[in-house]
Amino acid sequence: MAQSQHRTVPDEVTGDLYAEIQTFYARQMRRADALDIEGFADTFTPDGEVVHADGGRTRGRDEMVAAMRARLPRYQGVATQHWFGHLLVERLADGALGVSYYTLVAQSEGGGLSFQPAYTVDDVLVREPGGALLTRSRIIRRNTPGQR
Amino acid sequence: MAQSQHRTVPDEVTGDLYAEIQTFYARQMRRADALDIEGFADTFTPDGEVVHADGGRTRGRDEMVAAMRARLPRYQGVATQHWFGHLLVERLADGALGVSYYTLVAQSEGGGLSFQPAYTVDDVLVREPGGALLTRSRIIRRNTPGQR
Amino acid sequence: MAQSQHRTVPDEVTGDLYAEIQTFYARQMRRADALDIEGFADTFTPDGEVVHADGGRTRGRDEMVAAMRARLPRYQGVATQHWFGHLLVERLADGALGVSYYTLVAQSEGGGLSFQPAYTVDDVLVREPGGALLTRSRIIRRNTPGQR
Repeated sequence: MAQSQHRTVPDEVTGDLYAEIQTFYARQMRRADALDIEGFADTFTPDGEVVHADGGRTRGRDEMVAAMRARLPRYQGVATQHWFGHLLVERLADGALGVSYYTLVAQSEGGGLSFQPAYTVDDVLVREPGGALLTRSRIIRRNTPGQR
Repeated sequence: MAQSQHRTVPDEVTGDLYAEIQTFYARQMRRADALDIEGFADTFTPDGEVVHADGGRTRGRDEMVAAMRARLPRYQGVATQHWFGHLLVERLADGALGVSYYTLVAQSEGGGLSFQPAYTVDDVLVREPGGALLTRSRIIRRNTPGQR
Repeated sequence: MAQSQHRTVPDEVTGDLYAEIQTFYARQMRRADALDIEGFADTFTPDGEVVHADGGRTRGRDEMVAAMRARLPRYQGVATQHWFGHLLVERLADGALGVSYYTLVAQSEGGGLSFQPAYTVDDVLVREPGGALLTRSRIIRRNTPGQR
């Protein structure tokens, strides 16, 4: 089979970009899992929006921080790790990056490890003037049975 | 310790190729998990073969589609996510790509998340003339205890 | 938003390096999971150190091999897979690579899959003169609840 220059991904999704996005999420999730709410919110644009699986929605960092603080009691004494997989990256028309991924939330309490139901997430990432990535929007959906 | 130009991986396994392969699997698994059987089969070569952990084998897209349709009842009402990890990529003599990886299958039914036993998979990927990747063969093995 | 040359990661953490490190771990973990103790120890520097979550510490390959052999009985009949996620890579002042990641250990025994509590790991990787990566140190920590 002849080798071709064409690739499965758009030429602009380079290995450098893919590694940069994985690194961005690795830092963002460490903040979430450390309950560093303000640090986590700083990885979103000031007007960043999140739509949660239960339909809840926050717009902007203040609403995000308030909602996360309200949920804190659920995380006391619980060690959480958000895991991501199967990242798909595409360049959007306005120059932003659309990134979709699977996510599992593992929680250790006492001696066991348990998992929340699985989710699929669709993010839009943008670059601030200095060049660092920020999340402009996040839509979290419960993983649901395929339909046939 | 002196820095060297030599790397742990063959020079041909670049970050671009690694990201391209991860993207290929991210798309392929979304089709599997959405029960998009025909779309999933389209990511295999027309003569693509799969050997399953239980010894079952399909050769070609028609056999694959028929076998997947026969298994559909197990997936009704079950939300599935196939997770991949530890991808190892090597260039094969004929220009194809040998890719091996760990896989876990997470399933949500009602309120809980459960996992099938773990598997290790060995794929051979090739490029069609247009350049997109396709799976030419897949061997799925149950993860078994190490031997000493 | 203006596109910038600046990126979220230091310019030296390229896609090629990130893929190389993922490949290094994919090979190292296959050896661990296959109970290839000597092969696993060969992926560490001769003086490589490991600090375990329970406080145990080994220094050098001989101590590592002895400690792993002592733990072997726990792995008889158990199929293990170590999974890694959220790799963070940074260049250290002496030219070594600091790599941190999440890890889950999945174990199949009989028909089920179970997980050990989750861990976070901090490695230092260096290159031997030939250029291949080796682990110089590894600190394994139990994932603990965030503090607020």
